Amino acid sequence: MSAPIPDLPVLAEDDSMLSRRFGREVANYFSGSPLNRVSFLRTDYGFLASAFAHASASFLLVDQNLSPLARDPANLAWVGTDDVAPLTGPAPFARSEKEQVAAYNSEVARPLILFLGLDGTGDTSKTGTGAGGFEYRGYKGSPFFAVDVTPKGSLADAANSVVERAKAKGFTFLPGARHVNLNAPEAAIYAQARALLDWNARNPYCGACSHATMSVNAGTKRVCPPTDWAGVTVVGDGSSEPKAEPRARPDCPTRHGVSNLSFPRTDPTVIMAIVSADGARLLLGRQRRFPPGWYSTLAGFLEPGESIEEAVRRETWEESGVAVGRVVLHSSQPWPYPANLMIGAVGQALPGGETIDLGHDQELEAARWFPLDEVREALLTGVSGLGEPAPAGYKEGGLRLPPQTAIANRLIDAVCSGYLSAVPKI
Amino acid sequence: MSAPIPDLPVLAEDDSMLSRRFGREVANYFSGSPLNRVSFLRTDYGFLASAFAHASASFLLVDQNLSPLARDPANLAWVGTDDVAPLTGPAPFARSEKEQVAAYNSEVARPLILFLGLDGTGDTSKTGTGAGGFEYRGYKGSPFFAVDVTPKGSLADAANSVVERAKAKGFTFLPGARHVNLNAPEAAIYAQARALLDWNARNPYCGACSHATMSVNAGTKRVCPPTDWAGVTVVGDGSSEPKAEPRARPDCPTRHGVSNLSFPRTDPTVIMAIVSADGARLLLGRQRRFPPGWYSTLAGFLEPGESIEEAVRRETWEESGVAVGRVVLHSSQPWPYPANLMIGAVGQALPGGETIDLGHDQELEAARWFPLDEVREALLTGVSGLGEPAPAGYKEGGLRLPPQTAIANRLIDAVCSGYLSAVPKI
Repeated sequence: MSAPIPDLPVLAEDDSMLSRRFGREVANYFSGSPLNRVSFLRTDYGFLASAFAHASASFLLVDQNLSPLARDPANLAWVGTDDVAPLTGPAPFARSEKEQVAAYNSEVARPLILFLGLDGTGDTSKTGTGAGGFEYRGYKGSPFFAVDVTPKGSLADAANSVVERAKAKGFTFLPGARHVNLNAPEAAIYAQARALLDWNARNPYCGACSHATMSVNAGTKRVCPPTDWAGVTVVGDGSSEPKAEPRARPDCPTRHGVSNLSFPRTDPTVIMAIVSADGARLLLGRQRRFPPGWYSTLAGFLEPGESIEEAVRRETWEESGVAVGRVVLHSSQPWPYPANLMIGAVGQALPGGETIDLGHDQELEAARWFPLDEVREALLTGVSGLGEPAPAGYKEGGLRLPPQTAIANRLIDAVCSGYLSAVPKI
Repeated sequence: MSAPIPDLPVLAEDDSMLSRRFGREVANYFSGSPLNRVSFLRTDYGFLASAFAHASASFLLVDQNLSPLARDPANLAWVGTDDVAPLTGPAPFARSEKEQVAAYNSEVARPLILFLGLDGTGDTSKTGTGAGGFEYRGYKGSPFFAVDVTPKGSLADAANSVVERAKAKGFTFLPGARHVNLNAPEAAIYAQARALLDWNARNPYCGACSHATMSVNAGTKRVCPPTDWAGVTVVGDGSSEPKAEPRARPDCPTRHGVSNLSFPRTDPTVIMAIVSADGARLLLGRQRRFPPGWYSTLAGFLEPGESIEEAVRRETWEESGVAVGRVVLHSSQPWPYPANLMIGAVGQALPGGETIDLGHDQELEAARWFPLDEVREALLTGVSGLGEPAPAGYKEGGLRLPPQTAIANRLIDAVCSGYLSAVPKI
């Protein structure tokens, strides 16, 4: 229906009969990372240490506003181990999780270094430093990291020096509330880095016991250490090894078994293209902050003890008064502002349930049923970024829609392109 | 394929042509709540107060182990306002969120009362106290609540008296790690209550600033109050109104704008039926704790900056070594142990990517490709609860599978029932 986004990940068709029956998976912007996260290696500090030190390691710098270092608005900038060492030190992964926890001192600031993954494409020419040759236990691919360069506490000078060194190469931190102009593979890498850095920054304390937590496993876990060396003075009398014990902290529930509080949070969000009972019209709504003529699909947070399908029905009714029957899941999109998982669905209004009522939660300024022909026209002439002018060919007063980087656009496009017709989806 | 679960929610077919084309939405156990959450009324304390006090209000008691009060293993027990009043007081929603925050005293224990929703079925004979007649601003339906009866601090005696009163009616708290024998509509209500009570219990402190938080909006939000009356003595000299100010607490990021830390956490989890490239076999795995012969679908937590489809591919490869191509979303299931959203998907292995390798994350004891015919046989003869004996007709050595209350079973059933064939899914 509408033009593809450059470099948007599309799974290759393959030749199996079954696959041709499947149809194509929809891949949304901020997904499609070229990295293999090898999540099981994050606890292997031998791996982390050798990946960090390797000549092919690529580091993304992210500042206190969560802006990434970039060459230009479409491309991230990558630096090497030497560039980050003034902040990270030469061997930040020398100690295991257990050793780090035992040495925990709440008064000592530690740099945050995320391990993102190994390049799984085999093509290092487009992303990263361009070097290759890393291998560990048979796992190959250039290692990718992100480093928080927020100038905090005793690390401020070191962080600033890393920033200055990067800027001297002509790179800048990419401002903006949404980074939707990045090429798609790097947007996916940035989404991972942003979500994890933000989670670490938002959660310095333990929700279960109130004490400060520490980041381990290359930024993917926060633990509540049982002891703290802060304020403990180690004094020896010369006759033997100096002895001291760290201060014990109160017991904490997160130290017993596995607690979700130790792991990153992702907020599931439903977003839905709702068609009328006869399938001929599409329900769209607008918020007050939207430009004139602009509409999008409805959306909202999923709640505890609720399926995606139920959340779609609840949110649609609460926002628009429309009663939805069947709901089918379409595709998903990570949205790292701050930690959303957008789950796209298509639903069908119940016969007799199409009357619009904005009086329930009063979140929308307007909601309307649009004939599919009008929506198809808008996909051709009314699509642009939220802050951007309408595209050429747009007629004043016409419907405007979100860009292709938003899953809303992909859902609308799917409905207009025959998703509801009797074509198999799998 | 296999027998339906009694009362499992099934969306009614309706008569529109489009709906007949859609096929049927899959509804999983723990979804399908009969309640309308009217989430926008949780901030309306006039609503909460009148719903709480109404004769038709139904209260589910939940103890410190998150066990619900029940009549028997299949049915929850419901009590009325008078039954909970010794713990909650007669008017726990008399003060607005703003007033409660201004009056916050960290030394005063407050009972936790969840508002769950209004009965949306119009049929009060099966669930709840059976009374009707509640209406507020045009919203009708008996109000449903849950009350935490953990005997904590100064509330211990009152909580115990509420428990004794309920037990005197012949009700008991339903033990068990999983409550999968409840009738489906009440299982969904319990899932909502359990997830929210557990979230409140897990998060007494603010992850952003370390200070104690308070529950507002009937258990659906936790705020970090800017002041605290704890330890403040109000003394008057008799000549005028006594004057005092609460103690100010440090600034907290959650007080600026909207923070996800103030709202319940749900952890998205992927669970997937992976078929071979030719569609003739199904990939299943087993953990060490499973009984002999027992297999299930693979599953794992979704990570930050990852789509559902990517998480399916990553987890399948990490657990089994199998490379997956296309992924299509199937259905979802709330799983309140403690806060998972199970997102079911069907994926297809890439040609040449079917070799099993358990050496990556080493989570599974075994993974195997099963011919669909063998899986179909197991759906008929090998399905039971995890701790239960194999059903009649099971032949020693045969494949055993999870019960119909698990989305794993529904995914396996879908693949065996022709989900992959060219039948339209919507």
